[in-house]
Amino acid sequence: MLDARTLPIDPARLQARIHELGSIGVHPNGGLYRALYDDGWVKAMELLRTWMEEAGLAVRFDAVGNLWGRVEGTDGGSAVVTGSHVDTVRQGGKYDGALGVHMAIAAVQALLEGVGRPKRPLEVLVTCEEEGSRFACSFWGARAIVGRIGAEEPEQIADADGVTIGAAMQGRGFDPARIGEAERHDVAAFVEAHIEQGAILEREGFPLGVVSSITGQRWMQVTVRGVQNHAGTTPMDLRRDALAGAVAMIGQIEQAAFRMGRPAVATVGRIQAFPGGTNIIPGRCEFTVDTRHAEPEPRRQLLAEIEGIVERVARERELEAAVEVIMDHDPVPMSTAIRAEIEASIRSLGLEYLVMPSGAGHDSEILAPRFPTAMLFVPSKDGKSHTPEEYTPVEWVIAGVQALAGTLHRLAY
Amino acid sequence: MLDARTLPIDPARLQARIHELGSIGVHPNGGLYRALYDDGWVKAMELLRTWMEEAGLAVRFDAVGNLWGRVEGTDGGSAVVTGSHVDTVRQGGKYDGALGVHMAIAAVQALLEGVGRPKRPLEVLVTCEEEGSRFACSFWGARAIVGRIGAEEPEQIADADGVTIGAAMQGRGFDPARIGEAERHDVAAFVEAHIEQGAILEREGFPLGVVSSITGQRWMQVTVRGVQNHAGTTPMDLRRDALAGAVAMIGQIEQAAFRMGRPAVATVGRIQAFPGGTNIIPGRCEFTVDTRHAEPEPRRQLLAEIEGIVERVARERELEAAVEVIMDHDPVPMSTAIRAEIEASIRSLGLEYLVMPSGAGHDSEILAPRFPTAMLFVPSKDGKSHTPEEYTPVEWVIAGVQALAGTLHRLAY
Repeated sequence: MLDARTLPIDPARLQARIHELGSIGVHPNGGLYRALYDDGWVKAMELLRTWMEEAGLAVRFDAVGNLWGRVEGTDGGSAVVTGSHVDTVRQGGKYDGALGVHMAIAAVQALLEGVGRPKRPLEVLVTCEEEGSRFACSFWGARAIVGRIGAEEPEQIADADGVTIGAAMQGRGFDPARIGEAERHDVAAFVEAHIEQGAILEREGFPLGVVSSITGQRWMQVTVRGVQNHAGTTPMDLRRDALAGAVAMIGQIEQAAFRMGRPAVATVGRIQAFPGGTNIIPGRCEFTVDTRHAEPEPRRQLLAEIEGIVERVARERELEAAVEVIMDHDPVPMSTAIRAEIEASIRSLGLEYLVMPSGAGHDSEILAPRFPTAMLFVPSKDGKSHTPEEYTPVEWVIAGVQALAGTLHRLAY
Repeated sequence: MLDARTLPIDPARLQARIHELGSIGVHPNGGLYRALYDDGWVKAMELLRTWMEEAGLAVRFDAVGNLWGRVEGTDGGSAVVTGSHVDTVRQGGKYDGALGVHMAIAAVQALLEGVGRPKRPLEVLVTCEEEGSRFACSFWGARAIVGRIGAEEPEQIADADGVTIGAAMQGRGFDPARIGEAERHDVAAFVEAHIEQGAILEREGFPLGVVSSITGQRWMQVTVRGVQNHAGTTPMDLRRDALAGAVAMIGQIEQAAFRMGRPAVATVGRIQAFPGGTNIIPGRCEFTVDTRHAEPEPRRQLLAEIEGIVERVARERELEAAVEVIMDHDPVPMSTAIRAEIEASIRSLGLEYLVMPSGAGHDSEILAPRFPTAMLFVPSKDGKSHTPEEYTPVEWVIAGVQALAGTLHRLAY
């Protein structure tokens, strides 16, 4: 059995690469912004291509711009793939997405240098887009791989300047008519390493996490309607205050998620009262709810409880309330077979790990229905993500690269 | 003793005048907007001048544009004054302010025609500005009368187009250097009739209200700071959610005012969460509180309770909270002597009345510290005000004109 601690993994090179990639696509207001098909994205992809070639991989862009680096296996067959995404949110950091790519390249390079050629084909994947922060096209790269890009999307989806995603593709030499060619069926396993983006691993003292399931999400917009009136002349007992009703709902929604316990979450990130005058009782109030759970049955319970809260508070206060579902998808369980390989690999390093759901979405949730897929988490310092303050010390990353290399060895060698 | 029911008050003329004045200064989006020194205001003031002259009054504009119509008394002395304002909020109605002017003219005209010349001078006052909806200069006319306009105001206060109030005065032939000439000391009593702007009189079945006190108001801006984070990866028990804290505060503030009972009110009319993303736990939340009470001691209690709520919720949830006072003034009690005359006048009509605080501000709160001042309310249909839907049926108004005429008779004849 391989002892992954003996593999040639260079912390200084890893650190230098995190820094080098992390200085491409700097946002004018701080942090990074590498958006699909923009200049920073092209520069980052070209840099990654050189690193992948240096590692001994045969590199190609697919029809939408995913970057694949491959070494053939002695026995052939379907590929074992590892990787993550390289695009960022606005004012994002150097770790979300990118660290999984760094870890993939480092692990594969260490295996090729330290062990040699695999039995199965081994590939590093850099998906071209996950965040959807330029176009409303989240998981663009991953969806192309599983054939889930709609025929109308290249023409219909445009960025804030009105540039369609199809036109942006052509600007980089990708032909929208050929998107279907990016689809793959010959993948035996996909392993994605990623920062946790939360504070659980660090707080609870685990060096690594193994993802059990990627959370189901529902985004709702709640509109509460009451009666607009004068804030001075309308007694409290004669009011039908839309904001007061919304506030009662939000307080109970927060408590419902809290009582249900981890990993249930419900977040109100936006709220607005109308007409919005200091001395006017709001006649209308709108707020969003982002609610998540990684297991189908408690997720159904939580959603039903939230709907019940909105209905009950509206009835008690003689308000009208409408809930519009903006986005909704079920939890995606990770492959138990691939998880078992990751867990065995971590144990062989003498390390502990936490089996945990992912509260954030990942490319893995798109790939998992087609390919056996699982995820490895490294801790995020102070739980920060989607901010320039994202950070994971390189010594924490090394354990992750060893665990990833050990997993790939089990799957491909 | 005068029976005011026998006075010559013409409902049809009153109705026609409400309609005629109510068609001057129409807002492009509906309702009225007559703002200080604008064209609609000039046209309205000129129309009122003709009606006041027709009633037999000697009419003049003072140095800021208040309109005074006077009949000398046989015995001389200080004047008995009645009136209200003629400016409106944006998209306001035909009744707020204007109805008190209609009632003043109708009552004085009925007394002059039905009874004859008073002993004391009797005056109708149309204040030039109360709402502050063009310039941030609320109670401009009333403040001029009591010498409370600051020397710097004409140059410093500007409208949304950058026109100073001093320049706007000059455009209408008023000299800012002469504002001091508008001040008066020779007023024996001021009686202001006004729509209630609330629903209490109608709901409780009183045809008229007598104001005990004009509410004290404090406007606050509360800023709550927590920790911005990812809505998916941060468990409920590790959050310091600024919006969740704000919502807990608002719920308790509403309950505190509700428990205290009428006339305590607390209103949150504006709220905003930052950064405002559906999937981001807000790191900051700002909201306003407009809190009012007509009595000093319970007002102090309510304010202390609200401050306590903000502090306690912030402490419990490990948030920071800051309260900024935007506006603050004490309740203004009405003259018990003038109130007694209004009440006696209403009783002599065989009508019931409710003694009630005013939850809205009025010119009377500015004049009351200098002159014995009191207010008479007529009901607002469905409690509506500051909207084109303001309405008080003319038959309800007639009782108010009779009560006002009876009061003026007691004070001036």
